[in-house]
Amino acid sequence: MTTRPPAEIGMSLDEIDTPSLVIDLDAFERNLRRLADRVQGKGVRLRPHAKTHKCPVIALKQIELGAVGVCVQKVSEAEAMVYGGVRDVLVTNEIVGRQKLRRLMALATTARIGVCVDDPAQIADLDTAAGEAGVTMPVHVEINMGGNRCGVEPGAPALDLARRLGDSRHLSFAGLQAYHGSAQHLRTWAERQQAISGAVDKAAMTRDLLAQNGIACDSITGAGTGTFEFEAGSGVYTELQCGSYIFMDADYGRNFDQDGSPTHVFEPSLFVWATVMSRPRAEHAIVDAGLKALGMDSGPPTVWDEPAATYERASDEHGRLGIAAATNRLNLGDKIRLVPGHCDPTVNLYDWYVAVRGDRVEAVWPITARGAVY
Amino acid sequence: MTTRPPAEIGMSLDEIDTPSLVIDLDAFERNLRRLADRVQGKGVRLRPHAKTHKCPVIALKQIELGAVGVCVQKVSEAEAMVYGGVRDVLVTNEIVGRQKLRRLMALATTARIGVCVDDPAQIADLDTAAGEAGVTMPVHVEINMGGNRCGVEPGAPALDLARRLGDSRHLSFAGLQAYHGSAQHLRTWAERQQAISGAVDKAAMTRDLLAQNGIACDSITGAGTGTFEFEAGSGVYTELQCGSYIFMDADYGRNFDQDGSPTHVFEPSLFVWATVMSRPRAEHAIVDAGLKALGMDSGPPTVWDEPAATYERASDEHGRLGIAAATNRLNLGDKIRLVPGHCDPTVNLYDWYVAVRGDRVEAVWPITARGAVY
Repeated sequence: MTTRPPAEIGMSLDEIDTPSLVIDLDAFERNLRRLADRVQGKGVRLRPHAKTHKCPVIALKQIELGAVGVCVQKVSEAEAMVYGGVRDVLVTNEIVGRQKLRRLMALATTARIGVCVDDPAQIADLDTAAGEAGVTMPVHVEINMGGNRCGVEPGAPALDLARRLGDSRHLSFAGLQAYHGSAQHLRTWAERQQAISGAVDKAAMTRDLLAQNGIACDSITGAGTGTFEFEAGSGVYTELQCGSYIFMDADYGRNFDQDGSPTHVFEPSLFVWATVMSRPRAEHAIVDAGLKALGMDSGPPTVWDEPAATYERASDEHGRLGIAAATNRLNLGDKIRLVPGHCDPTVNLYDWYVAVRGDRVEAVWPITARGAVY
Repeated sequence: MTTRPPAEIGMSLDEIDTPSLVIDLDAFERNLRRLADRVQGKGVRLRPHAKTHKCPVIALKQIELGAVGVCVQKVSEAEAMVYGGVRDVLVTNEIVGRQKLRRLMALATTARIGVCVDDPAQIADLDTAAGEAGVTMPVHVEINMGGNRCGVEPGAPALDLARRLGDSRHLSFAGLQAYHGSAQHLRTWAERQQAISGAVDKAAMTRDLLAQNGIACDSITGAGTGTFEFEAGSGVYTELQCGSYIFMDADYGRNFDQDGSPTHVFEPSLFVWATVMSRPRAEHAIVDAGLKALGMDSGPPTVWDEPAATYERASDEHGRLGIAAATNRLNLGDKIRLVPGHCDPTVNLYDWYVAVRGDRVEAVWPITARGAVY
C-alpha cells in the first residue's frame, strides 16, 4: 500500500509533496481548547466523534483535554482506536453480522466498548456474542430524530428495546443515542435551535417514559459541531459527540451564528495542499487535487490562499480553478491550500496528516482508521 | 493502516465482510477479452488506463491479452505499476515539482516511462531531471480536445512544444496525448461520434502540421470506454487508453449504443458488497455503505440484486435505500451488490479486491496504488 508519508519532520511547508493533508496546528489546538472550554461546567460529557479524524493520536489529545472517550461508526474504527490507546469507545451505530460482533466483543475484553441498536434481532445477536466472549456490553437505543436513517421512533418503540436489553443476559441498557444529523447544516442559528428543541423534546419524552416504567436513562448522547451549544444547554443531553469542530470545513463555514455572521466558533485547520500543475489558459489554473484527493459531496473546496479563485470542476485527478478575478499566486508550480467542502470523506482518502506549525512540519501522524469501513 | 482483507480464498460470497469491493471474475474476464477482440486488427495499440483499477495484478492480465503497457495519472501510481512488474507505463499527465521528477526518472532507469507536457517550463524541468538521472525520456505533448483541463491548443502551440522537445538534451518528442474526456459520457452514439470526429480532426491537423515541419508523430494516444470504437477506426489515433471497460459502472451504463439501446458492449463486473444493517421503517433499508464506501460524484449506485430498490441518500457511513416497490431480499442482515456510480473514485477507497467466481472467493488482490495521489 502507498504508505510513504508526503513529508518529513523539519521540512518547510513548500517542501511537502502534494496533494496531501495538512493540519495547521495552531488553529487545530485552538479548536480543541474552544470546545473543551465551552463544555466545561455545563454538566455534559464530551465524547468527540473519531469518524472525522480516524487517528488515535488526535483522540488522545481530545481525551487529555477532558473528553471521556470517543465515538466511532465502525468496528474497524473501534479497533484502530483501542489499538492506539483509547480506553473508552462508543460505536454510535448498529453492528450486524457474526464476524463483526465477535470482533466487537473481543475489543470489550480490553476497553470499555458501547454500541447501539434499533431492532430486537440486533439485541439477540449482540447478547449471544457477548455471552460467547464472556463480556457484558452497555447498549444505547438509537432513536430517530427526524433524519430517517437508523433509529426507532422516540417513546414506546424505544421503551420496548430498553426492556429487551434489561431482559438480556449479557447486555445492559446504557441510554439513548439521539443524534440529529440533519440539523447540523441548517444555515441559520434559529433553524438549528428549533430543530434541536424538537430533538430535546423527543429525548426527554422518551427518558420520562422509561422512568415511568422503572428504567433509568443515564446517558442521552448526540450533538454535532453545528448544534452542540443547544444540546449542551438543554438539561436533557448528557454527552456531546461533535467531530468536525477540530478541522471545520467549507460546508460548516456556510453556517451562520446567532448574530447573523458566518460561524466563527471554530476555524479551518485542515487543508489539502495542492500544486498548480498546468496553466494552459489565462483564466484557468489546474491543480493536482481532484475527486481522489477531496470529498466533494458537500460542494467543492474553497481556495484559502486566493479567495478570488474558484474551484470550478473536479475530475478524478485534477481540479480546475477559475482565476479570472485573481491573482498573485497560482503560477505553474505554486502550492496552495484548499479547504475541503467536507472534512470526513476527505480525511478518509489519506494515510497521513502532515502537522505544521507556522512554516515547519512538526509531526506526521498516521490515519490508522483510513479505509476502516468494516 | 487497515490492511486486513475482508475475505479469505475459498469463502462463499455470503461470508465476505462488508462493505467491500467484489469483482465478478466471469464478467470481468469477458470485458477484458471483448476489448482485446475489438481492437485486434484495427492497427491500434491498447494501453489501458490503470487509474481505474490501481492494481498491477489486473495490469498484467491486460498485458497478457495484448496491451502494450498501461497509463497512469500519478508518479506514485507509476511506482505501484513498475514495482508490480509492469515494464511500460505512460503518465498521461503533467508532472510538476522537483521531488516528483526525481522519482519519475528513477523509474525510467528500470522501465519504459513516458510523460506529458503542456508548458515550456515543464520541458525545462524534465530535461534537467532526466539529465541528472542519466536517462532519455519520451514525452507526449498534451492537446486540449475541448474539455478545457490540461493541454495546449491543437496546431501551432503543440508544434512549439514538440520543437522544444526536439531541442532538449534528454527528452524526445513521442507524440500527442489527445484524450477527449468530456466526450465519454455523452449519452447518444451520435453525440459521441460527433465529438470524437472533432477530436480526430484536431489531432490529424496537428500531426500534419508537425509533418510539414519535419517532425514525425508516431503516437496519437487517447480514447476511453465511451468512445474507443471511434478512435480505433479513425486512422489517426494509434493507441487507446480505455480504463473503465473492465468494470463498467452505473454512469457508463447510462450511455446508449448505436441502435438506441443501453450500452451492452461491456457489463458490470465490480460491485460494492453491502449489508442491510437497519430496517427501521417499512419503506427504508439502511445499508453499511455510504460516502466512504462509494464514489458518488456521478450519481448513486444502482441496486444489482433488487432493481426495484433505489439508493436514495448517502451519509458518511450509511446508505438509505427506498424499498417501497420491492422486495424479497433487503431484510436485516441481508447482503446485496451495489453497482457504483463511478468506478475509479470507488476503487480508490479500498485496499483489496475480492475476486469471486460464482459463489466462491477465488483471489484477493491488493490495490497497491490506492491513495497514490502524489
